Amino acid sequence: MDQRSKVVQGIGVSPGIAIGKAHLLEQGRIPIPYYTLLGEEAIDEECRRFDDAVAKAERDLEAIKQSIHPDFKEHVHVLEVHQMILRDRPIYDETLRLIREEKYNALWALMRALMKAHELFRSLDDEYIRSRVADVDAVAERILRNLAGQNHRDFNNIKERVIVVAHDLSPADTAQLQLERTLGLVTDMGGRTSHTSIIARSLSIPAVVGTESATKLVQTGDILILDGASGKVILNPTEEEISFYYERQEELENYIKGISRMAHLPAETLDGYTVKVEANIELLEEVVAAKDNGAEGIGLYRTEFFFMNRTNFPDEETLFFEYRELSELMAPKSVTMRTLDLGSEKLATWYPKLHENNPALGLRSIRLCLHYRELFKTQLRAILRASAVEKNIRLMFPLVSGVAELREAKQVLKEVQEDLLSKRIPFDEKMPLGVMVEVPSAVAVADLLAREVDFFSIGTNDLIQYSIAIDRVNEHIAYLYEPLHPAVLRFIKQTVDAAHKAGIEVGICGEMAGESLYVPILLGLQLDSFSMNPQSIPRVKNLICRSRIKECRRFVNKILGMSTAQEINEVLQEVMIKNFPEEFRVFDPSVLTTEGSVSHKQKKRAKKMRKSLEES
Amino acid sequence: MDQRSKVVQGIGVSPGIAIGKAHLLEQGRIPIPYYTLLGEEAIDEECRRFDDAVAKAERDLEAIKQSIHPDFKEHVHVLEVHQMILRDRPIYDETLRLIREEKYNALWALMRALMKAHELFRSLDDEYIRSRVADVDAVAERILRNLAGQNHRDFNNIKERVIVVAHDLSPADTAQLQLERTLGLVTDMGGRTSHTSIIARSLSIPAVVGTESATKLVQTGDILILDGASGKVILNPTEEEISFYYERQEELENYIKGISRMAHLPAETLDGYTVKVEANIELLEEVVAAKDNGAEGIGLYRTEFFFMNRTNFPDEETLFFEYRELSELMAPKSVTMRTLDLGSEKLATWYPKLHENNPALGLRSIRLCLHYRELFKTQLRAILRASAVEKNIRLMFPLVSGVAELREAKQVLKEVQEDLLSKRIPFDEKMPLGVMVEVPSAVAVADLLAREVDFFSIGTNDLIQYSIAIDRVNEHIAYLYEPLHPAVLRFIKQTVDAAHKAGIEVGICGEMAGESLYVPILLGLQLDSFSMNPQSIPRVKNLICRSRIKECRRFVNKILGMSTAQEINEVLQEVMIKNFPEEFRVFDPSVLTTEGSVSHKQKKRAKKMRKSLEES
Repeated sequence: MDQRSKVVQGIGVSPGIAIGKAHLLEQGRIPIPYYTLLGEEAIDEECRRFDDAVAKAERDLEAIKQSIHPDFKEHVHVLEVHQMILRDRPIYDETLRLIREEKYNALWALMRALMKAHELFRSLDDEYIRSRVADVDAVAERILRNLAGQNHRDFNNIKERVIVVAHDLSPADTAQLQLERTLGLVTDMGGRTSHTSIIARSLSIPAVVGTESATKLVQTGDILILDGASGKVILNPTEEEISFYYERQEELENYIKGISRMAHLPAETLDGYTVKVEANIELLEEVVAAKDNGAEGIGLYRTEFFFMNRTNFPDEETLFFEYRELSELMAPKSVTMRTLDLGSEKLATWYPKLHENNPALGLRSIRLCLHYRELFKTQLRAILRASAVEKNIRLMFPLVSGVAELREAKQVLKEVQEDLLSKRIPFDEKMPLGVMVEVPSAVAVADLLAREVDFFSIGTNDLIQYSIAIDRVNEHIAYLYEPLHPAVLRFIKQTVDAAHKAGIEVGICGEMAGESLYVPILLGLQLDSFSMNPQSIPRVKNLICRSRIKECRRFVNKILGMSTAQEINEVLQEVMIKNFPEEFRVFDPSVLTTEGSVSHKQKKRAKKMRKSLEES
Repeated sequence: MDQRSKVVQGIGVSPGIAIGKAHLLEQGRIPIPYYTLLGEEAIDEECRRFDDAVAKAERDLEAIKQSIHPDFKEHVHVLEVHQMILRDRPIYDETLRLIREEKYNALWALMRALMKAHELFRSLDDEYIRSRVADVDAVAERILRNLAGQNHRDFNNIKERVIVVAHDLSPADTAQLQLERTLGLVTDMGGRTSHTSIIARSLSIPAVVGTESATKLVQTGDILILDGASGKVILNPTEEEISFYYERQEELENYIKGISRMAHLPAETLDGYTVKVEANIELLEEVVAAKDNGAEGIGLYRTEFFFMNRTNFPDEETLFFEYRELSELMAPKSVTMRTLDLGSEKLATWYPKLHENNPALGLRSIRLCLHYRELFKTQLRAILRASAVEKNIRLMFPLVSGVAELREAKQVLKEVQEDLLSKRIPFDEKMPLGVMVEVPSAVAVADLLAREVDFFSIGTNDLIQYSIAIDRVNEHIAYLYEPLHPAVLRFIKQTVDAAHKAGIEVGICGEMAGESLYVPILLGLQLDSFSMNPQSIPRVKNLICRSRIKECRRFVNKILGMSTAQEINEVLQEVMIKNFPEEFRVFDPSVLTTEGSVSHKQKKRAKKMRKSLEES
């Protein structure tokens, strides 16, 4: 007989159904005991224990590095630094010396070595080196945890596919999630627009956040059902519930398969308005996914990977070969390349480390490129050279704040072009040039910018952050991150109007573009192209093909008069559930309580499912 | 005979002439020697030396605390924490113990104690306490410098009025400047919009930045002439030059005296357009300066002081008495009170410390108040109660991002009002309510916000930062901080238009309001009131009274069509130098080379001046 299941209600933030075992993430304190080792044997053993802990840390870091999601490659560099620190003399050798000579236990010895390292670092009186103390501490903590027999919260002890349950997931945690092993996410904290939610949606992992108490109720190994649409988490589900949700899961999968088959058709509304649906990618390997999902081009190629993933400064040839290959793989479809969009902290391997209180408002992206001209020119040369063959590359500057900055960047581009011309190195002289519109000041002068470029691409992620003056990674104010804020919709409209008045195209490449909920709004705002992660293309295309542009325009006119995101969201949800029930349906397991709703055959199947789940 | 003077050309960023001795700011390394003390006497002596160093640090901190400028009161809290740490057991007692028992020299002993303190802090495994390590380090460095006989860069060894010369001044440096002893500022780095420049202008200290080499050429004690308008710094000036500039200085002072006498008249243009000119203040003591300079009200009362300057949480009575006194002092003129506009880091004494990567985009200001409701309600109750007597208080919420947030804040206000009503505590039921417009999203929905409040006040400092996505305190991108960015002017225009369409008043209270250069633009943009630091009122009023609103409107229409801040700035400078030569004149000392331009009497006077300067 089933024990009664328990339903925990949270906020459904990433649709889809997950059925599986829970994996609870916890993180405890490290007690540091102190004792003297008695005898050579104990000392040898302690040295070995320390060595094992370091080796494990080494393996852990390598595993995390390998498994890190392409969206978070920026973390790889930090991990590499950490790997190097592991065997640094002041930590590694000194700890072993303290164990041998002072007969300290390993935990205590490591702590002492760490203190000395601090002292050493401090005495150097070099700002850059002093700032690396934080890295040393992070590495030491990793070894300390291994020594203390505590698992670091690095997820790679998760060996089966599980539903991850956590009080909260920091951006660093999310970056380390082994996604192929993550069936779903449940957190106590968070809301629809928190970091975890956005990541989950963009990776199509069902997620429920804001449950408040999930970590208190759930234990590792418990069977869970998670409905990312309704926000329900069912703990220890009955056989009937398991069976019911397996069926719903199958329905959903069939629905997705159905629309995937249609993804290669053009995205045209029922009344004949066509938009270009493209893919955001970062790696060459993603071209396959982009094409498979029906991308009509690369709307955003993020070029940061080669600047974050290595200790050598990327040379022009490496970049050129990569860019040319991408261009050839996609031809005759277009590839829109965004120039380097990094913060200064990511270039600390090659350039002096800056100390910025608010790096998001600091020397980054196009500003950084204009600051380090040779870096910028190297990338521009590689892009220009790659443009020669297929002539399908478009160039795009990020974070442009106004006309003066755009002109400065164009001047650098011109210098590179003239140099190539003088050396008779071919490039596409008609390569279209665009800017990302993602800074509020760029919106305000969109009419002026439109005169000087060939296209706009609206980066909604940054635009929302800067417009509302919030860092969405900051959980304390993430609730203010609201794509449906009337100001955001107005800024998009203003940008589109300015572009169309000047006769240039305008696309959108923020995460907003890939969320099916926003399709009618973005259509009604008259965007010419949508660029998104490849996985989202089929759903978005499907919705576009089933919409009418006239209705979308009317709808947008209506919501542009509204005062709050909440009002707009309510109207939007209502319309979408009505028009696209398969996409936005919310399952109601209460039907299960009705007598006779489950057949004998279903019951038998359910029993089997539950059994296999428990044994998994 | 005079030696030849040398002219260093920089960027004149704060007009005025300074003549005096240079004080060069330098900061060196601290070498940490290690030796064993021999004999009791040496140990006693070393303990005394350490004690003296701590006592000096104590006095230094107290002096800095006392002399800190009201605009930077936020630093006081940090200084108080530092004072407490000075005598903390793990630092103070432990160092003395190490000197006595281990016979370490004081510098080494302190370093060892510091290491132990680190260890202790780390072992606590409490994020908040761990984050205080930085404070411990800052305090230790202060003692270390005293022990090593190096002056801390805290400026309070400056005993005479000097021209401060530095490679660069960080915001923390500027905050510690003893302004009554600072005749002028010269830096190697920086531009018109860097932090130092803005501070210098707002405090009317002549300043030249971007000289590149001043610190290499100037030594402490050299005589300098600094012309903050032309950007000239004259090193070792001739008697003629000294005489010439003393005369110019006198002329300027007479000009300022002249306009100060007119400051109590209303600010009305030649063609009859009146604006209200008010003062930004933070302390009751500033009311005198505000009134003396002709302020027609307090346009911005910053209420942060009571939350930063003490370890006790400010109670309602303290706030109430302060607010009521201000209201009474200013009546019948109005006082616009801004509710708490702080970052979360400033409340770390009472609330858990948050870790924010980008605090400027974090939990601050109205968001923080909505997060800590009781704090907010305490302040609102005090303001409401104070409003009862003179009924001249206006309330203003900062950092409002949209209608939803405003409504939430209004709801809290309503709850407080209802509570007061139920307890029959009087308050001004008609107290006007306004919002600061300083977030780009607020500009975009200014029409919606205008329906729900009685007035707007545009905070240009934050508006510029968020619109262009820059942190102006970050020197690497401060060049992008540009009040004349076309986007900024358009955002101001959009806000004014929305306010006037809804029939409400709109003022400006950022630093832009106090800069005479911008007067014609702000007039042409039709702002109803200007609020600024009291010192700037006479100059701004003077320029308003000599302007014609029709010409200003025409001028604004012209510049709103321009593409870059540089273009606008050029036209503006030209117009201002032509129309207001006494305000914007640039002196040309080259006339001095003309034979016979200096009379015998002048020469005699010059000799005397130079002599007294050298002896000062």
